[in-house]
Amino acid sequence: MVQPLKIGLLGLGTVGTSTAGILRSPQGRHPSLTDIEIAKVGVKTLDKRRAIEFPTGVLTTDLEGIVSDPNIDVIVELIGGLEPARSLILKAIANQKHVVTANKAVISRYGEEIYRAAEQANVYVLMEAAVGGGIPIIRPLQQTLSVNRIQTVLGIINGTTNYILTKMAAEGSDFSDVLTEAQELGYAEADPSADVDGYDAADKIAILATLAFGQQVNLEDVSCEGIRQVSAVDIQYAEQLGFEIKLLAIAQQDETGLQARVHPTLVPKDHPLASIDGVNNAILVEGDPIGQVMFYGPGAGGGATASAVVSDLMNLATMVHTSNLVNPLFKIPQHPSSRLVPTQELVTRFYARLICVDRPGVIGNLGTCFGKHDVSLESIVQIDFKNGLAEIVVVTHNVKEQKFREALAEIPQLEAIEQIEIPSVLRVLREK
Amino acid sequence: MVQPLKIGLLGLGTVGTSTAGILRSPQGRHPSLTDIEIAKVGVKTLDKRRAIEFPTGVLTTDLEGIVSDPNIDVIVELIGGLEPARSLILKAIANQKHVVTANKAVISRYGEEIYRAAEQANVYVLMEAAVGGGIPIIRPLQQTLSVNRIQTVLGIINGTTNYILTKMAAEGSDFSDVLTEAQELGYAEADPSADVDGYDAADKIAILATLAFGQQVNLEDVSCEGIRQVSAVDIQYAEQLGFEIKLLAIAQQDETGLQARVHPTLVPKDHPLASIDGVNNAILVEGDPIGQVMFYGPGAGGGATASAVVSDLMNLATMVHTSNLVNPLFKIPQHPSSRLVPTQELVTRFYARLICVDRPGVIGNLGTCFGKHDVSLESIVQIDFKNGLAEIVVVTHNVKEQKFREALAEIPQLEAIEQIEIPSVLRVLREK
Repeated sequence: MVQPLKIGLLGLGTVGTSTAGILRSPQGRHPSLTDIEIAKVGVKTLDKRRAIEFPTGVLTTDLEGIVSDPNIDVIVELIGGLEPARSLILKAIANQKHVVTANKAVISRYGEEIYRAAEQANVYVLMEAAVGGGIPIIRPLQQTLSVNRIQTVLGIINGTTNYILTKMAAEGSDFSDVLTEAQELGYAEADPSADVDGYDAADKIAILATLAFGQQVNLEDVSCEGIRQVSAVDIQYAEQLGFEIKLLAIAQQDETGLQARVHPTLVPKDHPLASIDGVNNAILVEGDPIGQVMFYGPGAGGGATASAVVSDLMNLATMVHTSNLVNPLFKIPQHPSSRLVPTQELVTRFYARLICVDRPGVIGNLGTCFGKHDVSLESIVQIDFKNGLAEIVVVTHNVKEQKFREALAEIPQLEAIEQIEIPSVLRVLREK
Repeated sequence: MVQPLKIGLLGLGTVGTSTAGILRSPQGRHPSLTDIEIAKVGVKTLDKRRAIEFPTGVLTTDLEGIVSDPNIDVIVELIGGLEPARSLILKAIANQKHVVTANKAVISRYGEEIYRAAEQANVYVLMEAAVGGGIPIIRPLQQTLSVNRIQTVLGIINGTTNYILTKMAAEGSDFSDVLTEAQELGYAEADPSADVDGYDAADKIAILATLAFGQQVNLEDVSCEGIRQVSAVDIQYAEQLGFEIKLLAIAQQDETGLQARVHPTLVPKDHPLASIDGVNNAILVEGDPIGQVMFYGPGAGGGATASAVVSDLMNLATMVHTSNLVNPLFKIPQHPSSRLVPTQELVTRFYARLICVDRPGVIGNLGTCFGKHDVSLESIVQIDFKNGLAEIVVVTHNVKEQKFREALAEIPQLEAIEQIEIPSVLRVLREK
């Protein structure tokens, strides 16, 4: 009979409650779950009614006490936010405790500090729940896909924005209307910024990029654009041109270096990510020799996220019972570092929507201007005509971002161009 | 410096060559790969030209010698087929060697014997490559999803049949024409039976069911129907009714017991598996509390399959260096056994296409007959009328298979029914 793994749960919100729920009803689940015991649960207040009852003495408001309790083997950090989460994680590690966390914000900002501390203390820091909710992505990336040379990690990893974009596309509605509706339904927060401005996705892609490319990628290395500027008319034009607009998180490594970014992206309709709708998440990994694999499922929700948390605990329970050494496939792999590619050097495709006075020579002038800046166009189409103004949509092939921006900057000076406005500039998924 | 893990590779076909290729160019891959060394490669003949050269003495035709070589830690069995693969695997285990195999046929037939031997010898038997090619599915199922109560594993796990069905749907072509074309393109074998009759998918779902439900499910426990009877007209009618026809491998556990089966299935178009086209594979797992997750990617091919083989080797290399005990998450979990549900007790939906003389009362007669046998219908539609004959398509709700078969058997006796023919009976994905 092995000693059960004793855990201290910090936080008893939706995910914490589901985590306890799984552990306390192990029938029909992996037999190893019975080797895990909830020793302490740290909460804000003891007076609240809870969905789950614990024996006397398990619930406590003394979180510091839990992370220094010598009887506890693992801290499960589910309180979220930066502090006190970061400090509690570091104290737990300093006290030789393993850590399981769903906290993407802490890992994307303080991952390096936390991994270094864990390395010194010879403990595990596991975070399957930090990205993609219940979808197994961290383990497969570290333990299976890492035999490949990873080229790209592409993800729809924020359910709120995917819900909003899916609704906008289905109904032709505007961003602000759908956001209000999503807030009413509980799919978006009262302060929606973390989701709609892309910060949540940026946290997650920083974590995935670090694991996939074996070098520390921090939140500040991720260039980030949200979906507020995506309009119903862009979604409609993209549709006509054969694209869906998705908020993609992209991490890519090639001969020029490594890049990580989040932005709304036109995705060709036959791409596997184009059909991912609603609050679901999907992560596509490209590597050599595997090609493309995709992982799809619920990116949020108490039960799904708790499934990921408990899977980390189960892995821990089986590993610490068989060895005192940390398995290297559960650490950040150490690859030679690549330079981070600055945005202006990025090679991608673009979509731009322009409005100007409709006169002869406009299309010719635009085409010449892009050509002069080495911007190769796939199409330039006058989509609409209203009140003497032409609405023109340009889609490029792969180009250097800086060249494209230079061309755009020159357009107002062109001979045939009057009253130019450029309401939308969006990126298009890069060609192979 | 750790001792490298010494492997004996049995078979140097496409997958074997790709496996050696990955191991011999470790740059940009997980650093642990450098801890794996190819000690011996067993081949049929030494005279063949090879894509990869090995040092003198590595290639050998003495496969028995490899599995008993005391310098070798792991046997990688890539020769396929039942014998001598099974015997070599068992001998390797008896000699205390770990085994990595891509051999679904051996595992689905002799898995129980092999797992028992491995348990006694305290060695690993890993088979990520046996199902879904490069798609990580075995590891996620054992190591992550197993904290859930798994309800269903649904897969498109045979690329050849999915290619054929996709082509038939896109072009309205008949099975035999598309099969010939697939054979010319190398997507189907000269003897296509293993694919088109569902046996390959049956091997794979037996393996997945064993892992997902923690009880031995053998090939002979899987009921199996192939795609030969799927006609272009059924695909077209299914399309009109809102379905795609896919060859699904299904393993399901509920209060009535456990079932594993392979058959062509009408899948609602908004289901995640409906849009999986061509030679790709996808596996959807449903469990509590996670909900649905799906894994998608290349189900075959040397590079993709080798990625799975090498990932097993990498896991082995890191585990055997940290512990002498086999990690329980890499074994078959032991759950209480469920009874295997016989086909006649199966609850599913059906699609049937009937042709009979077009006279008043036909639809009424059919409806009454199904009702009498407790078969609740979703729709009964006269799709076509030709030469005095009516073509009628019936789609049911969830019903017991036996009841549905009884109703079908009674139809020729109905008053208004003349010259009845039932060219197609297909299952429809069960409702929740």
